[in-house]
Amino acid sequence: MEQQNTSSEFTSQDFEMMSRALKLAKRGMYSTAPNPNVGCVIVRDGEIVGEGHHHRAGEAHAEVHAMRMAGDKTEGATAYVTLEPCSHYGRTPPCAEGLIKAKVARVVCAMEDPNPKVAGRGFQMLRDAGVEVHVGLLESDAIELNKGFIKFMQTGMPYVQLKMAASLDGQSALSNGQSQWITSPKARQDVQHYRAMSGGILSTSKTVIDDNASLNVRWDDLPKSLQSQYPQVDVRQPPRVILDRQSQLRNDLKLFKTEGERIIVSQDGDIAPKLNENDQVDLAATLKAVASECHINHLWVEAGATLASSLIEANLVDELIVYLAPKLMGSDGRGLIGALGLTEMEQVIDLTITDVRMVGVDIRITATVKRIQR
Amino acid sequence: MEQQNTSSEFTSQDFEMMSRALKLAKRGMYSTAPNPNVGCVIVRDGEIVGEGHHHRAGEAHAEVHAMRMAGDKTEGATAYVTLEPCSHYGRTPPCAEGLIKAKVARVVCAMEDPNPKVAGRGFQMLRDAGVEVHVGLLESDAIELNKGFIKFMQTGMPYVQLKMAASLDGQSALSNGQSQWITSPKARQDVQHYRAMSGGILSTSKTVIDDNASLNVRWDDLPKSLQSQYPQVDVRQPPRVILDRQSQLRNDLKLFKTEGERIIVSQDGDIAPKLNENDQVDLAATLKAVASECHINHLWVEAGATLASSLIEANLVDELIVYLAPKLMGSDGRGLIGALGLTEMEQVIDLTITDVRMVGVDIRITATVKRIQR
Repeated sequence: MEQQNTSSEFTSQDFEMMSRALKLAKRGMYSTAPNPNVGCVIVRDGEIVGEGHHHRAGEAHAEVHAMRMAGDKTEGATAYVTLEPCSHYGRTPPCAEGLIKAKVARVVCAMEDPNPKVAGRGFQMLRDAGVEVHVGLLESDAIELNKGFIKFMQTGMPYVQLKMAASLDGQSALSNGQSQWITSPKARQDVQHYRAMSGGILSTSKTVIDDNASLNVRWDDLPKSLQSQYPQVDVRQPPRVILDRQSQLRNDLKLFKTEGERIIVSQDGDIAPKLNENDQVDLAATLKAVASECHINHLWVEAGATLASSLIEANLVDELIVYLAPKLMGSDGRGLIGALGLTEMEQVIDLTITDVRMVGVDIRITATVKRIQR
Repeated sequence: MEQQNTSSEFTSQDFEMMSRALKLAKRGMYSTAPNPNVGCVIVRDGEIVGEGHHHRAGEAHAEVHAMRMAGDKTEGATAYVTLEPCSHYGRTPPCAEGLIKAKVARVVCAMEDPNPKVAGRGFQMLRDAGVEVHVGLLESDAIELNKGFIKFMQTGMPYVQLKMAASLDGQSALSNGQSQWITSPKARQDVQHYRAMSGGILSTSKTVIDDNASLNVRWDDLPKSLQSQYPQVDVRQPPRVILDRQSQLRNDLKLFKTEGERIIVSQDGDIAPKLNENDQVDLAATLKAVASECHINHLWVEAGATLASSLIEANLVDELIVYLAPKLMGSDGRGLIGALGLTEMEQVIDLTITDVRMVGVDIRITATVKRIQR
């Protein structure tokens, strides 16, 4: 385990350059999955001589882009990297080795690589070669960038974001099921960039059939800021993972007519659901299988109240994204989540609000779910 | 009807001084009810020579305070007033007359007085005496300050703010009625300044009995900023208006043991409920009677889902203040409002969100209710 450094060892140049590296890393947010977002800036004599970010799994790492740009100016330079340089031969040679060969004098990293194949070995390689190494600069920002990658590496489970939409009084549909549209076009458009950021989109055959939902990324609906750096030809369609225990999906659904991979979770589908002793779907085991077998470490969930409650009750949700529309629908509608059968206020599910903002006329609330202990 | 001026006729000094007058007016927010909040600044040769605000019904108007402070420096000065100077003899002589006698040369006002006894007559008096008059500077800020006074003057109805509290999934209690405490102490404390600002607090005997609620203003719980300008001895306890059709209130309740007026709405109470042809309480007529007979033009409502829905469905709510706690309670709890029996999305009640902010760990949403047409 790498010892945490105090920030006093870092200079203002260090902060400035790591911020720049984090910004570069973010450019990969819509394309690197399941790989992490990484940015790198190489500085010599106070001047940026090279920089880059990881674009796509299988392609060059951030450090390689930056070193290519720097050419022979890497000698004696400082490399700022948002994640520990890799130490193992994957689809590309180890970056730690590359930095050593390039005669970089100092490496500043935001965080250690949680990948057990690396986990400090990159730093060790560098130090063994006489490179000065500092770790922990703007670490929380770097963690924020790679929640799926980190969670999967640490637990084998995917990072789960659950999207929900309701009226201000928490109703997701009228009693007869009508719900189109609770939220505004702007909110529905906002959903697109979450889909685009995810490693996979999880839903159920019920939602896919009821709404004839395509669950794909519509480039036209992405924010302008995103379109400008993410041309339509580069649009990545995250695989759509559909829970279909009863094998109800038919080929004429939009799901099958739109671009992008489908992963059907059914006995005769792409991956079999894991069952518990009561012959019911074990969601934890099923998501674990989806993560490891399909290389999806970050799931964006769009489904109904039933799956939402089941995921929450099984402690599988990391983050809620709730759109609340400026409407009242009355308590005889359908709830945001299903029944929980609670009898004491101590049993309620606690959240922590991390962000609240307006999206058009709707409110978007982001919250993390505290582990449930019952 | 006073003609609206374009802002181009106003100088930067005008804007600056009217802002100051509005700030002064706000100082009366917790004490002037049912009178409006008014501020006044008198300026001569670019220098503030007098200023003041209305403190309390029956006491001097803002203009009088400012003129007293200015002494003989009012001659040729400009008076900035947030509301049209009064033209009628009330508990104090007309301010328009006072300003004329003080030889003020120019009067700049934010808005016309909606009181039919004034309604432009103040301006006319001033103009007839040769005073230059300008109206409409920062008018929307002035309107915001006196929502109750304006609504009552225009319609005879009180301005109604409905407070609600729920979990993020819109539940106000568990199915067994448990609800203490959904929101955090900070949110419950936040409620205090709304109570303090109101002209009266409306609730039902059910809420008062179930919670043994005192519904008074607890000075200790007011924000520090408010305590500093509003000493404990000056705390105004808005009358608590309790709907008690069945005369269920007993004298041993906290309501009767705490300071402040009580207005019991029952056949043998302080005011009789107005009934419709079905012998049910006609809320609109009852609130109108409360407003005119008890001089309450601004009601803060704290009650259960039943009164909340009835008020909303009767188009009587102007503003919702909703506290959402970072909790999930499940759809088997009790809803924020009652059942509405809607079958089409076009029937939902539309709101406009005017403010969203964190209050401690909770979210506070302010919304206005669009008129319901069914």
